Amino acid sequence: MKKLYYGMVGGGPGSFIGDAHRRSISIDGQAELVAGCFSRTPEKCREKGAELGLDPERCYGSFEEMAKAEAGKLDFVVVVTPNVSHYPVCKAFLQAGVNVACDKPLCLTVPEAEELVALAKEKDLLFLVTYTYTGHVTAKHVRDYIRAGKLGKIRTVMAEYPQGWLAYEGEWGGKQGEWRCDPAQSGGVNCLGDLGTHVENMVSMMTGLKIKRVLAKMDKLVPGRVLDDNDVILVEYEGGAVGSYWTSQVAIGRDNDLAVRIYGENGSIEWKQTECEKVLMVSRDGTLTERHRGNGGIEPGAAKYGRLPSGHNEGWLEAMGNLYASFAECIRAKKDGTFKPEMIDFQTVEDGAEGVKFVHACLKSNENGSVWVEL
Amino acid sequence: MKKLYYGMVGGGPGSFIGDAHRRSISIDGQAELVAGCFSRTPEKCREKGAELGLDPERCYGSFEEMAKAEAGKLDFVVVVTPNVSHYPVCKAFLQAGVNVACDKPLCLTVPEAEELVALAKEKDLLFLVTYTYTGHVTAKHVRDYIRAGKLGKIRTVMAEYPQGWLAYEGEWGGKQGEWRCDPAQSGGVNCLGDLGTHVENMVSMMTGLKIKRVLAKMDKLVPGRVLDDNDVILVEYEGGAVGSYWTSQVAIGRDNDLAVRIYGENGSIEWKQTECEKVLMVSRDGTLTERHRGNGGIEPGAAKYGRLPSGHNEGWLEAMGNLYASFAECIRAKKDGTFKPEMIDFQTVEDGAEGVKFVHACLKSNENGSVWVEL
Amino acid sequence: MKKLYYGMVGGGPGSFIGDAHRRSISIDGQAELVAGCFSRTPEKCREKGAELGLDPERCYGSFEEMAKAEAGKLDFVVVVTPNVSHYPVCKAFLQAGVNVACDKPLCLTVPEAEELVALAKEKDLLFLVTYTYTGHVTAKHVRDYIRAGKLGKIRTVMAEYPQGWLAYEGEWGGKQGEWRCDPAQSGGVNCLGDLGTHVENMVSMMTGLKIKRVLAKMDKLVPGRVLDDNDVILVEYEGGAVGSYWTSQVAIGRDNDLAVRIYGENGSIEWKQTECEKVLMVSRDGTLTERHRGNGGIEPGAAKYGRLPSGHNEGWLEAMGNLYASFAECIRAKKDGTFKPEMIDFQTVEDGAEGVKFVHACLKSNENGSVWVEL
Amino acid sequence: MKKLYYGMVGGGPGSFIGDAHRRSISIDGQAELVAGCFSRTPEKCREKGAELGLDPERCYGSFEEMAKAEAGKLDFVVVVTPNVSHYPVCKAFLQAGVNVACDKPLCLTVPEAEELVALAKEKDLLFLVTYTYTGHVTAKHVRDYIRAGKLGKIRTVMAEYPQGWLAYEGEWGGKQGEWRCDPAQSGGVNCLGDLGTHVENMVSMMTGLKIKRVLAKMDKLVPGRVLDDNDVILVEYEGGAVGSYWTSQVAIGRDNDLAVRIYGENGSIEWKQTECEKVLMVSRDGTLTERHRGNGGIEPGAAKYGRLPSGHNEGWLEAMGNLYASFAECIRAKKDGTFKPEMIDFQTVEDGAEGVKFVHACLKSNENGSVWVEL
Repeated sequence: MKKLYYGMVGGGPGSFIGDAHRRSISIDGQAELVAGCFSRTPEKCREKGAELGLDPERCYGSFEEMAKAEAGKLDFVVVVTPNVSHYPVCKAFLQAGVNVACDKPLCLTVPEAEELVALAKEKDLLFLVTYTYTGHVTAKHVRDYIRAGKLGKIRTVMAEYPQGWLAYEGEWGGKQGEWRCDPAQSGGVNCLGDLGTHVENMVSMMTGLKIKRVLAKMDKLVPGRVLDDNDVILVEYEGGAVGSYWTSQVAIGRDNDLAVRIYGENGSIEWKQTECEKVLMVSRDGTLTERHRGNGGIEPGAAKYGRLPSGHNEGWLEAMGNLYASFAECIRAKKDGTFKPEMIDFQTVEDGAEGVKFVHACLKSNENGSVWVEL
Repeated sequence: MKKLYYGMVGGGPGSFIGDAHRRSISIDGQAELVAGCFSRTPEKCREKGAELGLDPERCYGSFEEMAKAEAGKLDFVVVVTPNVSHYPVCKAFLQAGVNVACDKPLCLTVPEAEELVALAKEKDLLFLVTYTYTGHVTAKHVRDYIRAGKLGKIRTVMAEYPQGWLAYEGEWGGKQGEWRCDPAQSGGVNCLGDLGTHVENMVSMMTGLKIKRVLAKMDKLVPGRVLDDNDVILVEYEGGAVGSYWTSQVAIGRDNDLAVRIYGENGSIEWKQTECEKVLMVSRDGTLTERHRGNGGIEPGAAKYGRLPSGHNEGWLEAMGNLYASFAECIRAKKDGTFKPEMIDFQTVEDGAEGVKFVHACLKSNENGSVWVEL
Repeated sequence: MKKLYYGMVGGGPGSFIGDAHRRSISIDGQAELVAGCFSRTPEKCREKGAELGLDPERCYGSFEEMAKAEAGKLDFVVVVTPNVSHYPVCKAFLQAGVNVACDKPLCLTVPEAEELVALAKEKDLLFLVTYTYTGHVTAKHVRDYIRAGKLGKIRTVMAEYPQGWLAYEGEWGGKQGEWRCDPAQSGGVNCLGDLGTHVENMVSMMTGLKIKRVLAKMDKLVPGRVLDDNDVILVEYEGGAVGSYWTSQVAIGRDNDLAVRIYGENGSIEWKQTECEKVLMVSRDGTLTERHRGNGGIEPGAAKYGRLPSGHNEGWLEAMGNLYASFAECIRAKKDGTFKPEMIDFQTVEDGAEGVKFVHACLKSNENGSVWVEL
Repeated sequence: MKKLYYGMVGGGPGSFIGDAHRRSISIDGQAELVAGCFSRTPEKCREKGAELGLDPERCYGSFEEMAKAEAGKLDFVVVVTPNVSHYPVCKAFLQAGVNVACDKPLCLTVPEAEELVALAKEKDLLFLVTYTYTGHVTAKHVRDYIRAGKLGKIRTVMAEYPQGWLAYEGEWGGKQGEWRCDPAQSGGVNCLGDLGTHVENMVSMMTGLKIKRVLAKMDKLVPGRVLDDNDVILVEYEGGAVGSYWTSQVAIGRDNDLAVRIYGENGSIEWKQTECEKVLMVSRDGTLTERHRGNGGIEPGAAKYGRLPSGHNEGWLEAMGNLYASFAECIRAKKDGTFKPEMIDFQTVEDGAEGVKFVHACLKSNENGSVWVEL
């Protein structure tokens, strides 16, 4: 396995998201961090780069400078800046011919999203949007189980993502809470942008269903909040299935409880992030079967990502690592000339663009008093 | 404890609902069945009455006849006929001056419901609507915990009641499925009438919240179905709280999974029918505490209904029995002249009428393309 | 169904065990209480009998008197006195020709147990020992699943029954705790007699395995206790399987957690009293399958005892009621002349005697420093 | 943070245990692999080393050669050879003055263990034995919760570690199964050496209890097996507490289910490897409280090891990584001259030696028919 080299914009040492991406990439030791832009002042950036063992020459005070200087030297760049900057940073690196891995949500507006999709296509570059939870072996199993027709036609999807960290009046969950609840920094959406996009993407990945229209009720339940902190979205998919998504930041006691339940004509399947090593399937006759990652019964296209034997818990880092594993494999294949599009087993810029469209359709529905809006 | 005497309309020996009511009443041995109308032909009725040990003289071929003949002789009547007959049967016995216990839903139309409310008031009679699950000690605990202010102001309620028994195209779940899916017999609503009314009532009982308006999406997901089999209802309560209710009969693998999660400004509480001996509370600081019926920490007004020590499972029959325990206690108190309205610890005709109004508001919302409808 | 008539010794109104037996018998309305001995003074007994609606003439101040007077009039007697009196009371009624239902443990000594076995046989009477949990549909399912060979040869059994109510130094769990911890009243054994006999009997019922020898470690963990409050028993069965049983009254947080896990050469099965409506089966290839009472996949000889549809929780009373259902059916069959021994689907005096032998073998093992003792 | 350099003996690329250690070390990027001995032939070793990016000069055909050549160049060596070689390899590196991280069990005999303890002490070297599960934040929480006196005096410990992978007659679980079941390669013990040592160590770490004596029943339940595959160990600790440990490889359906339940005079605490992000505590009054890693209520000395926010699952790799985090911190402190023994927050050679003594006491007990053996 040939090592790859990557740069990072945002996510200095000690930041949750920067460390998380670096750790995920390092699990399989496939890529080495060689360049970065962690701050707007070159000195501070070099300081932080030093902590990460980077050559000071490859620590930059601006992403524009970095994109220019590193063009041709990086196999990929990881973009983990606040949401508002995703678009310009991704654009700069795409224009410089660098493959991009960007944290979700992709960007703030539909035109931005469409521009990034077009640019990636034009430049023929790989673009990973890191919807972490789609990397779980069990999440991929749900997808492949459904693809294999084991549920028959899907009828209804119930998905939810409750958290409780923003439930407290007058306390905004630290720095992260502050920017998320500030319209200027977050793009005019809080809970739905953070959690709703995960739900939309996970359901899309698992079921392959395409949303036809949405009806959104977005509420501000904590006194003083100016952006949504609790949302319910009714969904109609092409082909007749229906769904309902709930996301919340005021569900005291819920840490990070993304869960998807899918009911088809021949059975059902349930997946919970909190118990990500398991999956529950029900067959047409009502038999409830539980399967564990690493054991029999897991679809092979999912099972292959497991690193540890059954019962040896994998978690969030491995899920993120699985996204990077496929991304890195595709990059290597591109370099070798062996790449084929069906090798892509990660969420792409197209998926990210769907998320942005979903959010904007929901905002429009909600502004108009919860009416149906076509996607 | 002085024994009471009761009659029954519908629910012959061997029927689920008739046996269930009889067993629930017998748990505490408080009332004896002495009269009944189990069929439209007097011979068949006497036959069935004989199986239940009834005097043939008190087995009737019509409820009208029974109401007249038994006026003054019965402490209460139990009405467990199909939904369409609830209204005329209850009316007849109220007019005859007999206290009534009627299975939910109370009746089919709002005018019917209002008439029964008015009649019960006019005659000063007790009227129990048997929303079974509200009888659970743990459900009453949720109510009292919230009443005691332990959640603070409620912000959002997520409630659901999925079942899977009507998921099969071309199979209508036996006799019960057939009448439920037939508009003529069921009053033009299936899933929402059966399950949605349980959800609406349970949330109302637990939280004391009053619904301001609803937005309903009622779907027919099984090909060939003419009535709803999967519903999502968005709810706004007076005072600013919001909720979402999901009911389904196509959720393969779910037997009878009524569940309510309530999030307030100072914590949350969760209750599941499938684990009805437990309740989970989360305090403001995120501490998750589980309590068991029969142990410390259960609110006293709820705990007093327990019959068995902690860890000795009580279930559906005991829940129903608790409704009858309070109903019988009130009847005795009326006879003794010691009755006070605050003794009522069961769902009444007013609660039943709320359920009918809820269903009709949802039907109207759905017919108009899922718009908001005031209650 | 012809009604039966029964008497009761011990268990006046308001007592846990008396009420529980009466309620269980009343669930199916099969037998009516007509006579009793609830106290040693005739006045008090009549007072208590009156509360239960008994004829004062059939309320007795001594069980000997009652046995004589009621011979030929009762279909069965229920014996729910403290353990020390089981033997003389059962003996008196057997001698009077009355079928007996006695709470577990059967009696205190092996000779007593053997005498009751012989007497029941000689008099050709039915004798139910109410090991309540064996009545659960799911417990019977485990038995029938194993009988059907679905586990293959059983290899090991892990069973436990922890409670926490006697964990507190200086507090003896009320009246019941006091007599259980008093050698004079309990027969020289506390935890093992109460909980260990349940474990021994449940495993025996489920697996059909016969114990060859035991090695017991019986501890007194609460300072001041003179009898065992925490026991571990190693077991070897005939045929090569092995097991381990744990019972405790000092496991703070555990209410009544009887649980059995059985591992065979072709799979395993797990049962928990706290979740008595479920059972978990694992097939040879590791597929974990959960089944619910009332749904498919439950062995028919067990499923037939269910009274409520799947998802409508049955519990402790129904389990006890199932024992009485089979007991009453056998009594009726005896009266009709249609009885066959294979109709017996409850634990008998022979099973009760096994429990007494088990306890005494464990006591002997423990007294000798935890050595192997043959049964 | 100054990078450390390490070598590895055993565990070539692709092996479960080698990859696992490398990944765990790489999570925090604290140490770089620079030397190795992965095979007995220098060519093969160099080949494997190349896959891991090692300098061919630092790939060795024997551990003796490597120990000599790398003395003074490595900060530590990782020993992940089969159990039989742990002793000579560890000894060679200790003699060369290199800190050692060795997989459990430490070695095969008590004299070997004692020699390693003495040698590490004499050379003043750090010695980590990688009992992975002790690295979990929640496991450390249990330890600190108990140390803080929150359970009071411990009364009983129930610990178990069932697996099912060796349940199949004639199939020996691949290469690993073969050597484990072969007396020559495994040191005359199978299940107890692999799983029992984990149990013994985890209980010791969590409770601080010291074993006084053991009574072992070690069984061979799969036909044809020559070493134990199912063991129950009764334990008496100094100070009066008692315990029972169960380990099995024939528990079909159980992957890797290490679990510990600890009951004290003032409450209890339960920990399960399968749900390693949670811990359940019961206070004296029976309140059941669940806590999640990353949230409030986790003891600070444990919480500090968390890398991800609450609800973002950590697993096996992070647990192992936590052991290496403390090990690396101690090595750095030694180099800086700031080391103090209380900084050690990992299992050491002394703990490993306790494990070897435990196994040998159990073997002796079992050989003598399950008698008590002092430790």
